[in-house]
Amino acid sequence: MAKAPILTPQSEDFPRWYQDLIQKAELAENGPVRGTMVIRPYGYAIWERMQAEMDARIKAAGARNAYFPLFIPEEFLRREAEHVEGFSPELAVVTHAGGRELEEPVVVRPTSETIINHYFAKWIQSHRDLPMLINQWANVVRWELRPRIFLRTTEFLWQEGHTCHRTAIEAHEYATRILHDTYEDFMVRVLAMPVVVGRKTAAERFAGAINTMTCEAQMRDLKALQMGTSHELGQNFSVAFGTSFQDTDGAERQPWQTSWGTSTRMMGGVIMSHGDDRGLRLPPNLAPIQVVVMAIRDDAAVIEEVGRIHGELLSAGVRAEVDVRTDVSFGRRAVDWELKGVPIRLELGPRDLASGEVTLARRDSGDKSPVSLAGVAATVVSLLAEIQEGLHAEALERRESTTVDVATVPEAVEAAAVGWARIPWADLGAEGESVLAESGVTVRCLISADGGVPESDDEEGAIAVVGRAY
Amino acid sequence: MAKAPILTPQSEDFPRWYQDLIQKAELAENGPVRGTMVIRPYGYAIWERMQAEMDARIKAAGARNAYFPLFIPEEFLRREAEHVEGFSPELAVVTHAGGRELEEPVVVRPTSETIINHYFAKWIQSHRDLPMLINQWANVVRWELRPRIFLRTTEFLWQEGHTCHRTAIEAHEYATRILHDTYEDFMVRVLAMPVVVGRKTAAERFAGAINTMTCEAQMRDLKALQMGTSHELGQNFSVAFGTSFQDTDGAERQPWQTSWGTSTRMMGGVIMSHGDDRGLRLPPNLAPIQVVVMAIRDDAAVIEEVGRIHGELLSAGVRAEVDVRTDVSFGRRAVDWELKGVPIRLELGPRDLASGEVTLARRDSGDKSPVSLAGVAATVVSLLAEIQEGLHAEALERRESTTVDVATVPEAVEAAAVGWARIPWADLGAEGESVLAESGVTVRCLISADGGVPESDDEEGAIAVVGRAY
Repeated sequence: MAKAPILTPQSEDFPRWYQDLIQKAELAENGPVRGTMVIRPYGYAIWERMQAEMDARIKAAGARNAYFPLFIPEEFLRREAEHVEGFSPELAVVTHAGGRELEEPVVVRPTSETIINHYFAKWIQSHRDLPMLINQWANVVRWELRPRIFLRTTEFLWQEGHTCHRTAIEAHEYATRILHDTYEDFMVRVLAMPVVVGRKTAAERFAGAINTMTCEAQMRDLKALQMGTSHELGQNFSVAFGTSFQDTDGAERQPWQTSWGTSTRMMGGVIMSHGDDRGLRLPPNLAPIQVVVMAIRDDAAVIEEVGRIHGELLSAGVRAEVDVRTDVSFGRRAVDWELKGVPIRLELGPRDLASGEVTLARRDSGDKSPVSLAGVAATVVSLLAEIQEGLHAEALERRESTTVDVATVPEAVEAAAVGWARIPWADLGAEGESVLAESGVTVRCLISADGGVPESDDEEGAIAVVGRAY
Repeated sequence: MAKAPILTPQSEDFPRWYQDLIQKAELAENGPVRGTMVIRPYGYAIWERMQAEMDARIKAAGARNAYFPLFIPEEFLRREAEHVEGFSPELAVVTHAGGRELEEPVVVRPTSETIINHYFAKWIQSHRDLPMLINQWANVVRWELRPRIFLRTTEFLWQEGHTCHRTAIEAHEYATRILHDTYEDFMVRVLAMPVVVGRKTAAERFAGAINTMTCEAQMRDLKALQMGTSHELGQNFSVAFGTSFQDTDGAERQPWQTSWGTSTRMMGGVIMSHGDDRGLRLPPNLAPIQVVVMAIRDDAAVIEEVGRIHGELLSAGVRAEVDVRTDVSFGRRAVDWELKGVPIRLELGPRDLASGEVTLARRDSGDKSPVSLAGVAATVVSLLAEIQEGLHAEALERRESTTVDVATVPEAVEAAAVGWARIPWADLGAEGESVLAESGVTVRCLISADGGVPESDDEEGAIAVVGRAY
């Protein structure tokens, strides 16, 4: 007799499947203040892995971490006209503190361009101070009317990079470097997510930027998720905050800036990109637990061998844990590790031990097969790499097979109802973009004819990738 | 001719020395909103080292990281009477968000006992769920009337641990374990700070705790700094939030809790514990840069050898950097590395190279001497350990030599004007504590006659350690 599914099947109700999974895998919960979230230990362990991998790439790109205040004087936000217009509706404002009303209310940072530029103006005097490359790991607040856990929360955790450069070209190159070498590389190699990397249209641009570039991923319900953005800010903020430097020729100039961010939203991306009806499927390079070694039952020789395998895996650099909670039924434990998306389970019982084997269960395919206890760590290491590749290939295959080339706006609307569409930007344009919006379809990004990132809003041959989005 | 000092000398004006150092070593700055701070990249790199070392110890104690919301419903704070009384005067309150007035204002977390207990009540049902051991790295806000950078800021970064246990004894043992194995161990071994570990008097206890234990350090101006606290909360919060579990005997009981925290205040502790008139002196186990290898001038062979030494140091596990900015004067660079407290400088010029040596400058003693280029990494590794020990020994010696035993309250006041005093708690008592307070002197903690941590407020033979404090 078939058991009731633990999660609402994806095909039945994808949003409910998403919420079920987050709850049952103990990733997160809604906070008491609307739109906020609690990230539970298992979810936070995944986020810590993301942080570690992303932070290493950010440092490799030469940026240094720093920390700027949570509270920003309201007046700072007003200095850049588009910026304040973009963020005003989402601001949380502190009006009372220390038992009295503040003379000037302060806003809780929705992003830190303004406050960081206030310091850039102090710290930068000469071309020798450039490039200045800063990153910050922090919480930010944007009041959300329709919150959804991880994807759109009132408070979220992120990293935000802020840089100053001597020339427009250097700023452009750095924003592009972060886009590819930091973000795309992380998403592909760690998250196993094949992102489309392109340029946002003017309508979708960050408030205050002259160019926003983006990494867009496709979820299993075929909707798009913006995974990270890298902006060229031009001189908008350096002019607004009076940041200038003495250039090599002695002239006083404003630096060209970039900013770029990725957040806990990527948690939602991983869940919806790889998860299935049995739960999460974590790419091995991301998983805080890559392998769990389970004792099927309470048997001294089995427990001892579980410990030995665990040690062998740790020595081989595998993030492994043991599960010897034999007072809980084996089936229940196995289902829980499936829910949590652990890539490989090694299940050991007395019979396996007697035959010198252990049962290896793959979370990606669900396959189970016996493998020899001799050299099990080597088997696991090579299989983890295979699973990482496989999850990426599967997601890429899905995206390719559900993205169609179209030539007209009605065709794009039709295609976006069941997947993604590619349409020449010359055939769509800002007008067609507005028509799409009426059907809830957006231009995720523009890509060049050769698949690269367009250098301008109206690059010849540019193609719009369109779809529904989170 | 003596040059003007870079920093105000400690003996002249200690608080100004502290501020000068923080600015000149580029550790931090004041934020635009009163009492907030910007932690600059070099300061933040030190904080990241603290986080890494502390986080490893917290995980070794079995706690798991999680993240709870910044915003707490005002009503949560009111549930524990002492807690709300203690924190109300310091709260920052968000009254407007998303462009409108909130129906219920939310407070910005000053600490997270309340919101975390709201979730403990959901997550804990059975004794099998215990112990529950949670830690959080986060920013918190306490409105400060007399802010001082790192030491008392409106917003600061910290870790806060929150745990639930089946019995009072287990909670007590865990709070004590964190105090010694996590906090004291970190402060002694990483920060090279010999802390006095003891119990707070009832007057100095955390709002809502039944026992607060503390690590107290002495600064170079002989004032005390509270470096970290570990609290037993009893059942105060579990009762207030209705957290209960079915015990082994089937009875429904409230868990016993602990909470414990350390913060960016420790940055101030390191500065004032080790810093001298030439700048910061970082203990090698903390220093983000343990060794800087400097090219004295622009000479191809010198630059090449600097690179080789750098590689040898990195291979030996030393956190090393090179300084080949030969367009800046050598003296200026050396002074800057001194300011930044880098434990060892290796200064290489053509003459050193010719003689197969490099000049090694120690930041702790200021000594300079030539060492052989052959095996320089081994020399450095052993010297780093010696410097670490030496800074600890120096701080311990200072504390010992400036702490006196006294028998009466007037003697304690007199002694605390020029150092610390130890006085039997039986001779001081709560009444004597109030008298001390009139002279700005506080009981830093009570210690047992054998130097341990007293088990009760009125343990026989307990000794009060008193002094002026930050």
